Amino acid sequence: MNDAPNLLKKLKEYGKSDFYPFHMPGHKRQSEGFFAVDFPNPFSIDITEIDGFDNLHHPEGILKESMEWASGIYGSSRTYYLINGSSSGILSAISGTVSRGGTILMSRNCHKSAFHGVFLNQLKTEYIYPQIIPQFGIQGGLNPKKIEEMLMNHGEIEAVFVVSPTYDGIVSDIKTIAEIVHRFHLPLIVDEAHGAHFPFGREGEFPVSALELGADVVIQSLHKTLPSFTQTAVMHVREGYVDMGRLDRYVHMYQTSSPSYVLMAGIEGCIRYMIGEGLEQMKLFSSKIEKVRKVLSGLKHLKLLTDREKGLYGVYDIDHSKIIISTRGTGKSGTWLDDRLRTEYHLEMEMCGPDYVTAITTLADTQEGLERLCNALLHIDSGLSIEESGKAETGFSQELEISPACRMTIAQAMDEPRHRIAISNGEGMVSAEFVYVYPPGIPIVVPGEVLNKESIDLVMKYKELGLAVQGMEDEESRELYVVNEAGQTGE
Amino acid sequence: MNDAPNLLKKLKEYGKSDFYPFHMPGHKRQSEGFFAVDFPNPFSIDITEIDGFDNLHHPEGILKESMEWASGIYGSSRTYYLINGSSSGILSAISGTVSRGGTILMSRNCHKSAFHGVFLNQLKTEYIYPQIIPQFGIQGGLNPKKIEEMLMNHGEIEAVFVVSPTYDGIVSDIKTIAEIVHRFHLPLIVDEAHGAHFPFGREGEFPVSALELGADVVIQSLHKTLPSFTQTAVMHVREGYVDMGRLDRYVHMYQTSSPSYVLMAGIEGCIRYMIGEGLEQMKLFSSKIEKVRKVLSGLKHLKLLTDREKGLYGVYDIDHSKIIISTRGTGKSGTWLDDRLRTEYHLEMEMCGPDYVTAITTLADTQEGLERLCNALLHIDSGLSIEESGKAETGFSQELEISPACRMTIAQAMDEPRHRIAISNGEGMVSAEFVYVYPPGIPIVVPGEVLNKESIDLVMKYKELGLAVQGMEDEESRELYVVNEAGQTGE
Repeated sequence: MNDAPNLLKKLKEYGKSDFYPFHMPGHKRQSEGFFAVDFPNPFSIDITEIDGFDNLHHPEGILKESMEWASGIYGSSRTYYLINGSSSGILSAISGTVSRGGTILMSRNCHKSAFHGVFLNQLKTEYIYPQIIPQFGIQGGLNPKKIEEMLMNHGEIEAVFVVSPTYDGIVSDIKTIAEIVHRFHLPLIVDEAHGAHFPFGREGEFPVSALELGADVVIQSLHKTLPSFTQTAVMHVREGYVDMGRLDRYVHMYQTSSPSYVLMAGIEGCIRYMIGEGLEQMKLFSSKIEKVRKVLSGLKHLKLLTDREKGLYGVYDIDHSKIIISTRGTGKSGTWLDDRLRTEYHLEMEMCGPDYVTAITTLADTQEGLERLCNALLHIDSGLSIEESGKAETGFSQELEISPACRMTIAQAMDEPRHRIAISNGEGMVSAEFVYVYPPGIPIVVPGEVLNKESIDLVMKYKELGLAVQGMEDEESRELYVVNEAGQTGE
Repeated sequence: MNDAPNLLKKLKEYGKSDFYPFHMPGHKRQSEGFFAVDFPNPFSIDITEIDGFDNLHHPEGILKESMEWASGIYGSSRTYYLINGSSSGILSAISGTVSRGGTILMSRNCHKSAFHGVFLNQLKTEYIYPQIIPQFGIQGGLNPKKIEEMLMNHGEIEAVFVVSPTYDGIVSDIKTIAEIVHRFHLPLIVDEAHGAHFPFGREGEFPVSALELGADVVIQSLHKTLPSFTQTAVMHVREGYVDMGRLDRYVHMYQTSSPSYVLMAGIEGCIRYMIGEGLEQMKLFSSKIEKVRKVLSGLKHLKLLTDREKGLYGVYDIDHSKIIISTRGTGKSGTWLDDRLRTEYHLEMEMCGPDYVTAITTLADTQEGLERLCNALLHIDSGLSIEESGKAETGFSQELEISPACRMTIAQAMDEPRHRIAISNGEGMVSAEFVYVYPPGIPIVVPGEVLNKESIDLVMKYKELGLAVQGMEDEESRELYVVNEAGQTGE
């Protein structure tokens, strides 16, 4: 038998280290924090559906009251507590609003679980591509007019699914999008996973939540930006364009029949905290983060993403709690910056792209932690100089919006017999896999789509430039699985 | 705004009360217990997929090592840590072993999530009915010969799905069933949710796990009978008859992309504990439980389910940690006993049927708790006398195995337009709902099945006798949704 691994030990040691988290979850491991201080040993409150404790899948008592209370706070027709993450909300929303085999319009930069929902229900897809913010190479927002165009030209679309904010905090014009979608009598689903704090921020300090802008289903990951346990989320539903009964059915299928009372208590506790002391803390947090952003706007080589991008590239608003630092023009990569922050300064970022890093900040961040981040970035910045990296750095916006022809649904392509080919030989073949390119982190090819010359050329260019091509089973990203079609049976 | 509900407060108060749990989870809230004593504040170890902590959905580091270590302990080809319960394992196993729209053979008494898996993948179903233990009116085991018959007569079956043990601890002859299933070159999936402790019990003291008897996919709810958090489970896979890649794909779809490190640490910690001190504790536990069972065999009116039932009704083995107490012949109902145990003795059972209660005991139970249970039952028993309840008490075995004709798949029936009718008028119509009868807790009608005279008569008989008919949207169980077919469009 191997030496026993010890995840718990490693987690405890890490928790005692001086590593500071600029990643989720939103509580930032502040176990002495105001919201965590009364939380008991989880074993002591981990129960099952016994007398008096209701049943999440058939709520009639304390859980029904709790979710109705939450619904009143958020202003929804119904609010669900989710314990299998936003993923389960996204799966439910997609499954519940589109008939099996029907068509959905989705933003190309949607979360993986949205593609899973499409796969499980054998849906057909139409896409809207987010615009790209060229100087940063990150995803911008969605153009409402394009959504309108798609809806006019595709009468078979049954629902619209968008991501806002993106994981970099870019918010689209949800109000206009909702108005357009409703004109076609369809529901708008918004993956607001990264915007769980929006409802608790003051106007002007944080973006407005999609729920207040007309969206019909809004999914929020409490754990990403609020003091709530990983795996906890909420899904808000507005009556009108949604078949509530149909949606409800799926919510119960995608979550275990034994939901954790520890997680549910965490959800309720988080919301209760946020409408109480949390509101005050959000104001303090906003003021702290504005100071941080002011300092970081002074960076000479590294560059903070700011409101300068508002109004362009579909960027309707920007979430100031997301600190996006670009390394373009410095000759250094996002990975380089990410590594330095980790190894020298013991600061762990949420993610790094090829030429930027993302730090998630929340109301649980300490002044000390935020100062460490500022000082680290200023210090690293002072050691840089202007350098061309040699890599193509302007956005690929037009080239990315390839809209490949679709020969079969994702479900069909993933279930059909397949064979592997060198990507360069793939023209005219139907992909059985996803191929993601970073920047900006969207799939250039989705199962069921035809590999055309433009997508192949783009993939080859990315690889040549050392940019990330991911998602394929072949770790080297050289060979791709394609669907066997008449005359092609593979090796 | 309503008064804020407070689930956490209610949970904490309950935890401090003298209520003793004879229900899951298996740790029995023993937060001072050997396995829980080192567990830190969950906020302090709740992280995301940062450097060095791997990714459950793409394990290459510490999580890969952990699951490989677990796999070595269990003797599987691969072991998955699940954080969306056995439900997610069952969904994955069914989705992964049967082609979309294909046929699965399942035991009629399967968990709801198995029916969800069938629904999501539009599968066709064939059923094997568990035998009923007549004197107790509870589900017995499966007859291997019947499985063989079904497989011979239905060449389209792609996988076999059975539940063993049942939630009352009844174990079927998995070894023989596996041999039969393999002769047809098919995989056997065993929902062993209630048998997570089997691998750690000594031979003769606890039943043998399906994994050691040839099953190809075995799903165990760690939280039900072991000291592990609610929502945690494991799925063991044996190579040979399973498409490992296909199964793997679904495991990642049915679980959140943000799995909890608290839950994962809990899983690993549980397994590590069980192969260490846990083995010793299981021996002590077995000896304690035999004493309890000896005492309870002396009950004069209430009746303990014992090994007397072994070898009959498909009962291959019985899990002694499940205490099943029947009220038949006492004139009292299961609900009556359940209530008395709760209100007078502050003992919470796992569940109660119309004429029995089930207590789950685990290695975490204290001597004091077990004594309280014995004393309570003996005391209640001493106040009872022999009485006919007037209700039909012999099992309905033959009548339950109605095997209604199936006109469409579960998926079709649940998606079609529907209308409500009085059940008594339903002959010849296709049900759009599940109808469960207790005892013994199996669906008498499944969506897509035709309501025939026998099933209607049985439902009416149950209602007349005051026995439980459940699962329908009509709380009164008087009206049933049926599928609109040609000429029927409802009111």
